Parts: sequence; structure tokens; C-alpha cells
Amino acid sequence: MWLPSQTEAIGDKMRAAGLELDPKTLGDLNRAPLNAIVSLGGCSAAFLSDQGLIATNHHCVYGSIQYNSSPEHNYLRDGFLARTLGDELPAAPGSRVYVIEDLRDVTADVLRGATRLVGEARNGRIETNRKALIAACEKKPNRRCDVRAYFGGKQYFLQQQLEIQDVRLVYAPAGGVGNFGGEIDNWQWPRHTGDFGFYRAYVAPDGSSAPYSKDNVPFKPKAWLPIAKQGLKEGDFIMVAGFPGTTERHRTGAETRFYFENFYPLQQRLLAEYSDAITAATASSPELAIRYASILKGADNYKKKILGQLAGAEAISLIDRKESDEQAFRAWVAADASRRERWSAGLTALDTEAAAANAAALEGLRRALLDRGQLYAAAMRAYRWSLERAKPDAQRKSGFQDRDRRALQEALTQIERRFDPAVDRALFEKAVAEYRKLPAASRNAGFDAALERIGMDALYSETKLGTTTNRIALLDMSADALKASTDPFVQLAIAAYPDVAAREAMSDARAGNLQAARSTYMDARMGYAASQGRTLYPDANSSLRFSYGTVKAKKRDGMAWTAFTTGEGVVEKQTGKEPFNAPQKTIDLIKGKDYGAYTAPELGTLPVNYLGTVDITNGNSGSSTLNARGEFVGLVFDGTIEGIISDWWFDPSITRSIHVDSRYIFWTIAKVDGAQRLLDEMGVR
Amino acid sequence: MWLPSQTEAIGDKMRAAGLELDPKTLGDLNRAPLNAIVSLGGCSAAFLSDQGLIATNHHCVYGSIQYNSSPEHNYLRDGFLARTLGDELPAAPGSRVYVIEDLRDVTADVLRGATRLVGEARNGRIETNRKALIAACEKKPNRRCDVRAYFGGKQYFLQQQLEIQDVRLVYAPAGGVGNFGGEIDNWQWPRHTGDFGFYRAYVAPDGSSAPYSKDNVPFKPKAWLPIAKQGLKEGDFIMVAGFPGTTERHRTGAETRFYFENFYPLQQRLLAEYSDAITAATASSPELAIRYASILKGADNYKKKILGQLAGAEAISLIDRKESDEQAFRAWVAADASRRERWSAGLTALDTEAAAANAAALEGLRRALLDRGQLYAAAMRAYRWSLERAKPDAQRKSGFQDRDRRALQEALTQIERRFDPAVDRALFEKAVAEYRKLPAASRNAGFDAALERIGMDALYSETKLGTTTNRIALLDMSADALKASTDPFVQLAIAAYPDVAAREAMSDARAGNLQAARSTYMDARMGYAASQGRTLYPDANSSLRFSYGTVKAKKRDGMAWTAFTTGEGVVEKQTGKEPFNAPQKTIDLIKGKDYGAYTAPELGTLPVNYLGTVDITNGNSGSSTLNARGEFVGLVFDGTIEGIISDWWFDPSITRSIHVDSRYIFWTIAKVDGAQRLLDEMGVR
Repeated sequence: MWLPSQTEAIGDKMRAAGLELDPKTLGDLNRAPLNAIVSLGGCSAAFLSDQGLIATNHHCVYGSIQYNSSPEHNYLRDGFLARTLGDELPAAPGSRVYVIEDLRDVTADVLRGATRLVGEARNGRIETNRKALIAACEKKPNRRCDVRAYFGGKQYFLQQQLEIQDVRLVYAPAGGVGNFGGEIDNWQWPRHTGDFGFYRAYVAPDGSSAPYSKDNVPFKPKAWLPIAKQGLKEGDFIMVAGFPGTTERHRTGAETRFYFENFYPLQQRLLAEYSDAITAATASSPELAIRYASILKGADNYKKKILGQLAGAEAISLIDRKESDEQAFRAWVAADASRRERWSAGLTALDTEAAAANAAALEGLRRALLDRGQLYAAAMRAYRWSLERAKPDAQRKSGFQDRDRRALQEALTQIERRFDPAVDRALFEKAVAEYRKLPAASRNAGFDAALERIGMDALYSETKLGTTTNRIALLDMSADALKASTDPFVQLAIAAYPDVAAREAMSDARAGNLQAARSTYMDARMGYAASQGRTLYPDANSSLRFSYGTVKAKKRDGMAWTAFTTGEGVVEKQTGKEPFNAPQKTIDLIKGKDYGAYTAPELGTLPVNYLGTVDITNGNSGSSTLNARGEFVGLVFDGTIEGIISDWWFDPSITRSIHVDSRYIFWTIAKVDGAQRLLDEMGVR
Repeated sequence: MWLPSQTEAIGDKMRAAGLELDPKTLGDLNRAPLNAIVSLGGCSAAFLSDQGLIATNHHCVYGSIQYNSSPEHNYLRDGFLARTLGDELPAAPGSRVYVIEDLRDVTADVLRGATRLVGEARNGRIETNRKALIAACEKKPNRRCDVRAYFGGKQYFLQQQLEIQDVRLVYAPAGGVGNFGGEIDNWQWPRHTGDFGFYRAYVAPDGSSAPYSKDNVPFKPKAWLPIAKQGLKEGDFIMVAGFPGTTERHRTGAETRFYFENFYPLQQRLLAEYSDAITAATASSPELAIRYASILKGADNYKKKILGQLAGAEAISLIDRKESDEQAFRAWVAADASRRERWSAGLTALDTEAAAANAAALEGLRRALLDRGQLYAAAMRAYRWSLERAKPDAQRKSGFQDRDRRALQEALTQIERRFDPAVDRALFEKAVAEYRKLPAASRNAGFDAALERIGMDALYSETKLGTTTNRIALLDMSADALKASTDPFVQLAIAAYPDVAAREAMSDARAGNLQAARSTYMDARMGYAASQGRTLYPDANSSLRFSYGTVKAKKRDGMAWTAFTTGEGVVEKQTGKEPFNAPQKTIDLIKGKDYGAYTAPELGTLPVNYLGTVDITNGNSGSSTLNARGEFVGLVFDGTIEGIISDWWFDPSITRSIHVDSRYIFWTIAKVDGAQRLLDEMGVR
């Protein structure tokens, strides 16, 4: 998961693996391919035409398909195709496209004045510096900037992106293609999922970023990915550029033990119960099921990921490996006086701070359940907004600055599509019951007392927050006005706030100390790596990275995975029932071997998915897969279950990424859905 | 799952598939190979020497390993090897070896006088006839005879077996070999399990069957399996003979729907809760865990089987297939006046009776939970024994005749190894709570009132049935003496009995009508099959059957399973932790490629497991796998999860059996455990 600035350093290795581009070109943020890579906030994507057409995963546009679906127009089931530009539909509220413009080192600016401070003061100074950098960057109109920590706060980079606000749904195949195999096939191979969908970025006629308007026009990006003239074959070089979310490869041995023995097992149980509760509460009507589909899918996906991590940790004896690596590293530090002087205190400090953070994180899992009550969470955000808004912008908490108002408003709006009062109450009651298993000192006394006083019945019968305009109105109310509100959820949130604030202050103090300790630890780790001739890359943190590998089959004793699956495999799995319910047209075309120009010559048939060895994690979803010349050859959308543990320990012999082949995408567009205008726009044959 | 009497009818097909034996020889119960096949009651096995040495699965001797294990001698973990005959250990109480002697059609005798009767009278007459046939057969000393229904009672066969009572544990590999992969690999491929173990049958010095005595000598069977000189390779003919337990392939469409929509989902949930409860209740000590290991393993295995069946039914749209097949069959009946006259009434009757049986079965699942209280179940059996014992032997219920006394006594004895009062109480309390979810009319009023009166505390503090001698003593007490007993479990069982008896009478009445209806239905089914040129074999019913197939890899799109796994795969999976914890010696020998003569020439390494296409189910466990010449080439021990649904619908393109290769067995015996005497005895090289 290399930074663009590292392309030249690893250029020889990449060229040896098959890269045909100049590594310097590859690292250039102002040219294709990197300039064509965009973030959707949570997912990655890329421009595929000069008209702002964007390819990403079906599961990345899922929320927008759902937002536009109704019992009469079930786009989740049937797919959606805009026949003309004018038919393209607004994406779900809050949908954004972020176009990368800059990524530069700002470590000195972030740490200015902080290096001698500790605890909350240190954290506060760093935050102030960060916010100032962001504010300066965002003075340019329609820019979204962030400053993230790398190597645990040893370095900071500022990432500048152009923010496009008008995003529209162009095309998504039927759910039986885009989600073929569903939860059963998730993280599995062999795979036959057409996990692709298309957005388009729109801007004002003058080219500036603007909210949705029917007068807006397609955005003209500086760069877009060329479509490969030839498809991939086994052994070919591939690369993926995107915004991987989080990895934990630089955690200590003790932290690893905590996460795998305590944190994940609890989290997994809480998610499983949540998933069961949603299913039960929405079983009575298809409409309810559609409303909660996106939340449910998220919970199920995350649950499966944790299960896979637990199993993967077991399979590779992760804790043992991490602890013995930690031991060797610390022995190396201890073996030399100058190393001891430079690093030992930091290592000890990290152990202490991390242990405190772990304890808080474990309790926090149960307290965070309360936010599953969507109206409660909305009221809490509104109250915090009122308190922060009373301060000068630069002094507010991140997430509650003027720049965040629109996101807040959209989050409060989006509830209307994902909420039902009876379901919310059922889920909130279960959340409260689980939260109450915490010992009294770990609970929120204000919340408990207020809930006791108000009662669950009154909460839901008297609240007005089920109506979107009422929720949005909260954002314009002062703290005093909110205190005077009779809405029971507002009262509950206000009563709960002091405890939330107190715990946040403790967390901020720990964050300051953790930054100091962890950056020292990473400094020592870099020294240790250098002593062995290795270079480190930072853990993933949602900033732009790229990784490369090859199309590669996998063998283990008794079994072999081929590198490609084929159309015939779709028919083989088809049952006609969810989740193996491809459209009849897909099935008929495959049975008739009507593959046209999309046949893979090496296979003699239509390729569907393929296996790769690129290093990905959450956030890479939707990333285009590029060939050795930087051309579009598909989308990465998943990994196999054995590789999930790569978030903690990357072993390329185990890990496989799963990609949808561009030939399956274009075949479906051409033959199943007849969307020739999209093929023409991308210049496909 | 062919009957021995069908070998000649399918001889041409088998020869075409590769059989080198004369089909007539194969069907002969008095010669090898069939005469070498034995039943262990629940598992299958075979003689491998003239000294009564028996090979079967590790999981079939698991109870005996557990019975002989203790914290000091953990044979479950470390394995067991008797260095000499004198070191061989008594198997768990109740262990038996049954040697096949006869299997003959007795339909006319069973149905004599019953054909015009209905309900309980019909059932009673059939039962009386059955018991008379069994009694006559068992006049010969040490014979165990049974009369089972085939084709739903259209035919009956009498199976006569010699019963050997002195069974000893000879050898079992370490748990890390015999159960390598554990629950994770269960029903999966690739597989690397050394699922083998060895018993020996002992008899009195005069050759007669006798209970354990140190003076007993090894049994000399009439036949034993020769060891193949050459191992298998892909494509080779294989066959398996054994005692498959139950299949449901001749159930109606409506019955199929009931089992997959109602019965199995509930049963699966009850088993999952039972498994969780055992784990929780025994978590505090390794000794408790050992005591309940066998019960837990049974529950987990069954739970996984049901889950697999549910998934398998979904994957092949079982209900649709069965219902459309049923429809076609009934249309064929309806299309012709003579068919209608012969069969229509029977078909209607079957639908009615099966619906009533289904309703009772669903309720029965919850009532049967009470038997999880081992002392309650013991008291109930003892009380029923006292009531039945007061009648002439021939009039008693099956299971409570003089011939059953020893089995009853052994069951009551065995509790001492698998029981802990606190654990039993925890499990019984959960069972009672679940049972109480039944509506009042479906509960046992006598049980409820007595439990209310006695109370859970008194049940466990005042009972004396925790002591084996006290349980055994119950078997000599009259019903009046039991009624006078102050033991609270005895009181509870007596109070519960009237309801049990009343429901059994209803069940017996249904059984009589079901026999009439189902044999008519099967008569019609045979007519329908004959009209299409097909022959039917009866559903499995624990009697001797054989099936044949080949060693065969499996491919699906994106994936291929090779036919064999190898020693290297054991090392690949090894983590050093359960369930991937093969002994260090196994690992070292594989790493050193020390395979000696056990190398498979085609693989160039040590074969471990292989895939076959033979038709098996529960009860086939432990069956020897035979090559085209009827020689021993391994043991079948499992199937892949996609094939579990074959109990309801056999599809040879999906189904694969999993076998442990004889070369892995002999290599482990020779190289890992150094048991040369066993190899010499079997004549291995």
C-alpha cells in the first residue's frame, strides 16, 4: 500500500514484475492513471470517460440504488439504466466524488508547538494545527482537505481533493448480477459476481462544483482511464489505486492479543445479534426490508470480516507471530545503549497508554450501541452541533465545524430512507439492554436516569424527530433552545451529553500521549527495519495508495483455484432463488455462448471474475484494476477469506484479491442491458 | 445402496465400472468380502486378520478411547497402542461386534394376519409376528436378529448376526491424527484426517461368544479382507459395504416440504442450543470436558449435518424437485383406471397419515428434550422395564424384552462416564424450559405437576441414581416397588409415564396405518419406475448394503478438487493448536519425506485422503473401502457437504465420499507409532 511518492523508490521492483509505465508517471498526481482515481468517501472509483463517467462497485452504489428504489421501481432487484443523460438519477443524499489534487508532507506544521506537551494539551495543539492547515487549504472553493497521521503520528500528510456534489446514478446491473452469490459467496472463491455500477459527476455550467441542479453539466476530468484493448491472462501484471481504509500491521504484540482475544469476539457477537434483530424486525414487509437493506448489508459484511479475521489469526498463529516479532524488535532496542536512550521510554509509554485505550475501547463497544437508535443519535449530533457552533470555528471539534454542516444535514436527511419507528424502537431496546450489561461506573448515568424518567413508550409516541424537517430544524437551534425542547429524544441526548463529553476528554488526553509514544515506537521500528534492509510503508488511513501484483491462481494440497471464473459457472450456480438468481437473459445468453468480442482467447469463453495478488482492504472497494500500461481491465471488489487477516499481517502467499473482469462488465452492458451509449462513451471497441 | 441379493442383477453394470470379482461371489454372505464386514451398532467395520482384528473409524472407537482416558492417560489426545494382546483394553460398555450370517425375505411371515387390520391392531399384529421371527432366530445362542421394513413395509427381511460381546481397543492414533481438522474440516475437502482405529473381537476359549474375561481368546472369523498389494489411483473402481443408517429418498413431496420447512429448522436450533449449553456447563474443568466430549461431538456432528441438508436442499431446489416428481408420478397413477383402483386410496391415506405423523413429530422434538436429563431418562427406562417385564416376553414392546436387558443395563452403566450432576442439572433445566414452550395440551401434565411438587433442588440433592449400582438395581425392582421408591427421579418418571404411554399408543395406531398406506405407495412407485425401465433399491435402514463407484476428482468453475490429498497438506494445515495439531513426529517424518514403501507412485508422495463417488450415509462410518478385487484400500469416513442432501436426493455429479487411504493408515502405524505387530498380523508387506 505504497504512497504515490514512493513509486520511484520501488520502480525497479515494479518494472521487474511487469510494469510498462514509467514509475515517475505512475506517481504523478496530475496525470493518468492517478489523476483519474477518485474517492466516493468509503469507496474508491475512477473516471472512464471525458464526460465524468465513473466506474465503481455495485456495492458502492448500492445505497443510491436503494434510495431510488420503491416497490413499483425495484432497481435493487431489476437494475437501473439511464437511457439518456437526462434519465440519470440523483445519488443518495451525501454522495460525493473527490478528485485528488495534492498529497504533501506537513509534519512540521502539525507538530509545531506540540512536541513538549503531553495529554490533552498535546492533542489539542495538534488538532488546532491540523484544523488550521485544513482551513487554509479549503479556502480554495469546493476543496475538501484532510490531514492524516502516518506511522502513528510520526508523519502527517495533507490531502487535497476537489469535491463534486452532484453525483448521479447512470447504470447498475440487476441485483442478481451485481450481488450474485450474496452473503454465501462473500469472501469466497470461486466467485461469479458482477460487482460493478456507474455514476456520473456533474458540475455547474461554468465548471464549478455545485449541488444538484437540472442545469448542471457533466464534469470534464483532467484525466480518465483508457480502456485496455486486450483483456488479462494469467500471470499478467496488475495494479490497483484507491483509498484503503485501515490496516493494523504496525500494532504491538500486546495490542494484537487484546484485539483478537477480547475486542473482536465481543464485536462479532454484538453484530450478529444486530443482524438477527434487523432481520426479525423487518420480516413483516418487503418495504421495511428495503429500508433496512443497506444497514443490514453493512452489519453482515462487517460481521463476516471479523469472523474471517478471527479464523485467519488462528490459522497463522497471529498472536504468536506478532509477539515473537515484538520480542525480537525489543531485544534489538535493548541491545544497544544509544537505542535504549532514544526509544525505551517511548516503548514503555506506548504499552501503558495502549492498555488504557484498550480498556476504554472494550467498554466503548457497548456504549456505542446506543447510536443504533437513529433518532437518539440524531438528537445527540444536533445538540453537540449547537454547543460547538457557539465557539469560533477553528476551536470546534473536528466534525462540527462549518465545513461539516452539510454532511450533518445530509446524515439527518438520509434517515428518512432508512428508518421505521417500530423497527428503530425494537433495535434501540435491544441496544439499551446490551448496554446495561456494563457495570454502573461504565454506564452513562445521565442517559440512564433520563430514559427511566421518560420511558420507551413516550420516546417514540411523543418525538417529532421522525419527520425530516424537524430533524433538520435542530441544526439551527441554540443549545438553550434545545434544552427548552420538549422532544423526548432531545431531552435524552442532553441528559446523556455530560458523560459523553467527559469520556471524550479522557480519550483526547490518551490520544495526545499515544501520538507521542507511537511515533517514537514507529521511529524505532523504522530503525529496526533499516537495520535489516527493509523499507516500511505506513498503515492504510483512507489516503491514496497503490499496490501491484499479478493475476494468479492458487493451489493448496487437494485443491486448486483457477485464476478465472467463467460464464458457465454462473449457470452452474444459478438456482433461480436469491442469492443465485441472475436474470434469465444472462442465463440464456451464456447457454447460447453468445459472447461476441468478449471471449477470453486463453479460456475460449467469457471471463467473469479473476484472482490477483494485490494488497487491498476496505476502502479499496470500487478501485479500478489497471494493467501494465495503466489501462482499465476491471474492478477489485473483494478478497478471499484467508486474506482478511492481511489487515494485521500481510502474507502474499495466502492473500488473493478478487476482481470483476472488464469483459464481463462490457458484455453485460452490451448484451444483457443493451446500453450501447455507455460503451461508445468509453470507447469500447 | 444395493442389497447383497441384487449383485447379480446389477453385475453387468459393476463389471463395466471395473469390478473384477464375480458378482455372485460379491453377493455371497458366507465368503469374503461380505462375510468380513461387521457392524459395531451405529458404525460399520471389517475383519483384517484371522485373529479378529477389526479396522474402523477413529470416530467409531472414540467412545472407547474416551472410556479408557483420564487426566493421567489422555488417550484421546495422545492415542493408544497395545504393545501386546494382553495390553488390549476393554472397549466402552455396550460395545459389540455383529458378524453377518443371514439376510432373507420374511415378508409373508411378518404380514400374516395383518393385511385386513388397521391402526393399532395392525401394528400390534406386525409387531407380534416380527418378535416371533426374532425370538425363533435368537434361539441359536449369541445371535442377534432383526426384522426390518423395506420400501415402507412392502417387504421385510430378517438379518441374523453373531453377537460378540468382548470387544477390545487395540490401537488408535493420536487425536491430532484421528481427528485432524476437527469440526472445521468436518464435511469439507481438502481433508487430511487419519480417521482410523482398531478393535479386536474376543470369544471364550471354546469359540463361543462371551462377556469380557481375561481368559477369552481372539475370535477367528470365517473371512477377513486381504490387504491390497497396490494402492489406488484416480479412476480406480472402489466399493464400500456396511450398514447405512437411514435415507429418505422415497418420502413424498409433502413430507419433504415438512421436514425442510419445519422439522429440520427446529431440530437444528435445539441442537445448537444444546451444544452451547454443554460447552458452557463444562468449561470449568478438563475432566468435565472429557466426560461430555462424546455427547458434545454427537450433537455438533448432527447439527452440522442438518445445516448441510438445509443448505443442500436450497442449492438443488429439493422441495420443487420432489414436488414435481410427485406430481408426475401421481398424474401417471391418475391417468389409468386400473392404476387408480389399485393405488389411489393408498396415496390419499398416506397423505393423511403422514400429515398426522408430521404434527406429532414436531411436538415430539421438544418433549424428547427431557431425555437429556440422564437420570430422568434412566428412571423412565427402568420404570418401563418394570411394566413390560410383568408381561410374557413375546408381548412386550421391542426394546424391553429379555434380549434387551443387557443393553439396558449397559446404558445405565455407561452414564457413570458421561455424567456430572451439576452439568446434568444445567442441561435438564434448559431442556425443561424449552419443553415448556409447547402448548399445554402438548405437554406432559403428569411430568409438569410432579416437577412442580418435587422441585429442581430436591431432584438433584435427594436422588441416589447418580450411583451406578443404584441405577442397575432399578432393573430388578417391580413396578410396585418403584412406585414405593422415594427417589425423586423415579417419582418424576412414574408421574410422567401415563402421558408417554398414551402418546405411544397414538403413534402405534398411526404406524399401522402408515405401513398399509406406504407399502401401497411404494408398490405404485415401483410400478411407475418399471414403466420407465428403472429399478428401485430400498431406503437405507441399517441393514447390510453395498455401493460402488470410482476414485474421482471434482471440478467446478474456478476450482478443482484433486482426488488425493498428501502428507504435505498436513504440514500446510498444521498450526500446533486444536484442531490442526498433528503429533510432532508426524510432522517431522513428512518434512523429511520419510514415506518408505507408502509412497503413491502417481503422486510421488504419501497419500492421506481421497475422494470417491460411492453412495453412503450415517452408519457407513468405519466401512472398509475395497478395490476391484475386494481388497482393503482404506476406510470411508465422511462425505462433502454438497452431498449431505443425498439422504433425500442422490445426485452422483454432486456427491463425493471421503476416504482415508490405507497407505496413510499403515504409514502411521509403521513410522509414527511403530506398531509392527499389527502390520505383521495383517500381512502388510
